[in-house]
Amino acid sequence: MPELLEQEYNIPIDELNTALNSGMFVHVRNMLESMAASDIALLLHSSPPKARTVIWQLIDSNIQSEVIEELSDEVRNPILKNMSPEKVAEAAANLDDDDFADVLRGMPDAVFKKVLKSMDKQDQVRAKRVMSYEEETAGALMNTDTITVRPNVSVDVILRYLRLKESLPEATDYLYVVDKNDTFIGEVSLAALLTSTTSKLISEVMETDFEVIPATMHDSEVASLFERYNWISAPVIDENGILLGRITIDDVVDVIREDAEHSMMSMAGLDDEEDTFAPAIKSTRKRSVWLGVNLFTALLAAFVSSLFESTLDQLAVLAILNTIVPSMGGVAGSQTLTLVIRGMAVGHVTQANSRWLLGKELAIGFFNGLIWSVLIAGVVAIWKQDVMLGAVIAFAMMMNLIAAGVAGVLIPLMLKRMKIDPALAGSVILTTVTDIVGIFAFLGTATWLLI
Amino acid sequence: MPELLEQEYNIPIDELNTALNSGMFVHVRNMLESMAASDIALLLHSSPPKARTVIWQLIDSNIQSEVIEELSDEVRNPILKNMSPEKVAEAAANLDDDDFADVLRGMPDAVFKKVLKSMDKQDQVRAKRVMSYEEETAGALMNTDTITVRPNVSVDVILRYLRLKESLPEATDYLYVVDKNDTFIGEVSLAALLTSTTSKLISEVMETDFEVIPATMHDSEVASLFERYNWISAPVIDENGILLGRITIDDVVDVIREDAEHSMMSMAGLDDEEDTFAPAIKSTRKRSVWLGVNLFTALLAAFVSSLFESTLDQLAVLAILNTIVPSMGGVAGSQTLTLVIRGMAVGHVTQANSRWLLGKELAIGFFNGLIWSVLIAGVVAIWKQDVMLGAVIAFAMMMNLIAAGVAGVLIPLMLKRMKIDPALAGSVILTTVTDIVGIFAFLGTATWLLI
Repeated sequence: MPELLEQEYNIPIDELNTALNSGMFVHVRNMLESMAASDIALLLHSSPPKARTVIWQLIDSNIQSEVIEELSDEVRNPILKNMSPEKVAEAAANLDDDDFADVLRGMPDAVFKKVLKSMDKQDQVRAKRVMSYEEETAGALMNTDTITVRPNVSVDVILRYLRLKESLPEATDYLYVVDKNDTFIGEVSLAALLTSTTSKLISEVMETDFEVIPATMHDSEVASLFERYNWISAPVIDENGILLGRITIDDVVDVIREDAEHSMMSMAGLDDEEDTFAPAIKSTRKRSVWLGVNLFTALLAAFVSSLFESTLDQLAVLAILNTIVPSMGGVAGSQTLTLVIRGMAVGHVTQANSRWLLGKELAIGFFNGLIWSVLIAGVVAIWKQDVMLGAVIAFAMMMNLIAAGVAGVLIPLMLKRMKIDPALAGSVILTTVTDIVGIFAFLGTATWLLI
Repeated sequence: MPELLEQEYNIPIDELNTALNSGMFVHVRNMLESMAASDIALLLHSSPPKARTVIWQLIDSNIQSEVIEELSDEVRNPILKNMSPEKVAEAAANLDDDDFADVLRGMPDAVFKKVLKSMDKQDQVRAKRVMSYEEETAGALMNTDTITVRPNVSVDVILRYLRLKESLPEATDYLYVVDKNDTFIGEVSLAALLTSTTSKLISEVMETDFEVIPATMHDSEVASLFERYNWISAPVIDENGILLGRITIDDVVDVIREDAEHSMMSMAGLDDEEDTFAPAIKSTRKRSVWLGVNLFTALLAAFVSSLFESTLDQLAVLAILNTIVPSMGGVAGSQTLTLVIRGMAVGHVTQANSRWLLGKELAIGFFNGLIWSVLIAGVVAIWKQDVMLGAVIAFAMMMNLIAAGVAGVLIPLMLKRMKIDPALAGSVILTTVTDIVGIFAFLGTATWLLI
């Protein structure tokens, strides 16, 4: 149960907030000075919009680039909007390629043009290069801080070359071996450099059976490869096999978290990047669309009920029990749906095994239907002193739990085939199905048997 | 939308399944031989139980340990149950410490004792050591394959020492510096070894401002530190500062994914490790508890409705509209709940900012209440030709959307304080609140104004 932890390890968020609220800005500035950039980023994420503006102004300008790197788009963009284009250009210049691209992409076009103008030539060229890769691709995730070596030199030469460099880029575990056209031909680990006989050639110690990542690969697929093969970094190449850069695990971890959160957030009709502390008006606009869709389905269910108005008129007890069967169907269906959506996201659910899965969920629907229809029959028969009414609701429960299992498997599979995100659309469609089946089964059978 | 990807990169799952189903075992064995252990693990995760048994028997026994390492408990345990204790002991012997502990922990006590007996002395000692750390702590996540060096030797000596070793443990980016009692005093990166003047002492090139991880730290907290500081590996120490081992990013990535999935699965009443292809009976048992809880809350809502039985008796149209307000409240509330649960999991929501958050969600509830109560009033007034009825449902909608926003913030905060997992219990409690408030507001106002 990770939620139960106090995650504020090392960050005195509450103390900072108290100091902010009482206007003790000097104290806040001192506290911020002793914090790492990633901790300040966490603090900004945990603060309401106004506090963010204040905190940002109290941050040492030397560390601002580093903080920007760690912010999500939703938190970063309002901050950048308040800075002059020159300041943004200056802060952006210090960013890694992937963060640089991310920041530029987040700007409105007009701002982007101004910022671009304020950059020096070199950064302008870099901006054009990094922006040429589509968002959510390997190209947009990579950095170009690779160290490349040639195959026909000795380990000894490389060791001397590295010693001249004085430091290596972060998360460097491999040097990449390229030919004179920059074609990727292999890689050599730092561990191999440290443990090999120094007279050996790079071509003798390099690995060549390593998978490379095309720049156009989707970042979720990149993440899945990193997870599967336990990589720390991996080379990115273009369609001609030319080495473009490398992707490191720290950037991949962000993709993994975002992808894992995506399903949960989408199922509630929220953006992945939904900022917990966004202004109320902005959030209202975003969420109202989802509520509108759900109001439509609720009206649809009400319409189905209205088909049985004369039945309800004669037997008010049906009105009281009418919500039970749709509600159970919704819960059972969303269990199946959640499982299938998770299974699809991690690559476990495919066309090949979907038939087996359908059979299994149908069986679960049947077994659970058996358990709960017997129980509800008993409860209703005793509560309302009506055995026949108990039988009717039991039958409806059985039908709806089976329908829920089937719908929970089929809806996401169909949506995926139609290239619609199952996490976003799945739960609305599922609830509509379980509401309508539930109401028809209950009120329909009641009309037939009890009226 | 990561779900839309074909994640089966490089793994011919469908072809394998076809071959399996037609009994072409030799063909399957040949295909398996060309696959990496992690790909075979993915295949096992994507297969129904029976196919898993067959595939397992076709896997080369040399690669079995590696495959075991990549399996989740739910998939691994049935496989191990079918192996002899000797075979399990043999396969386990090749595992890293953290996977070794994980495998042993997953066994029933009786099996564990038999497997332990089949182990050699050295592994028996290792088993006792790794089992001494509690599950989900840093200790259970670490390996002991660290390379330690002393501070008073030169870089040159270390370089020669490493050359004798011929290979380094996976994901080694730092050597750890310890004194003669194995107390951790610093660390030196491979990059530093490669770029420093070789005559320098380790004490001159080592970093000492690095954070260490106590063996008792919760693994979610470990993951949050890795994420925040972009670590690749980190040293684990005991309460006396003695170096015990190290944690590497590949194991942390699993924790990050599990934690992120935990909320989504729990909100649907599923286990994090719920196996998509578990047998139907097993899944029925697990899920029926959740359905039982929900049946109870549905009955509670029905009971609330029954308080207004005479009203419903007089006006059947109320029965038809009675589901709309609770349903909208449930949807709006679960948006807030999801956001707060995610915010808690990543450490953004704390006591300090919860009051601000409550104000924001209350405002969103009010604004959305305004939008949708006006709309529903219009729809109902036109549909049922009754302006007063429209006004009643609009009022109930407003009340319930505000209640949903407040409940969506307060319920998870209260649960967290009571050390109950908000992701698991939150949605049931929330739906109960929005159902009851919705029914009371709608039927109560209707009884007052329309009867």
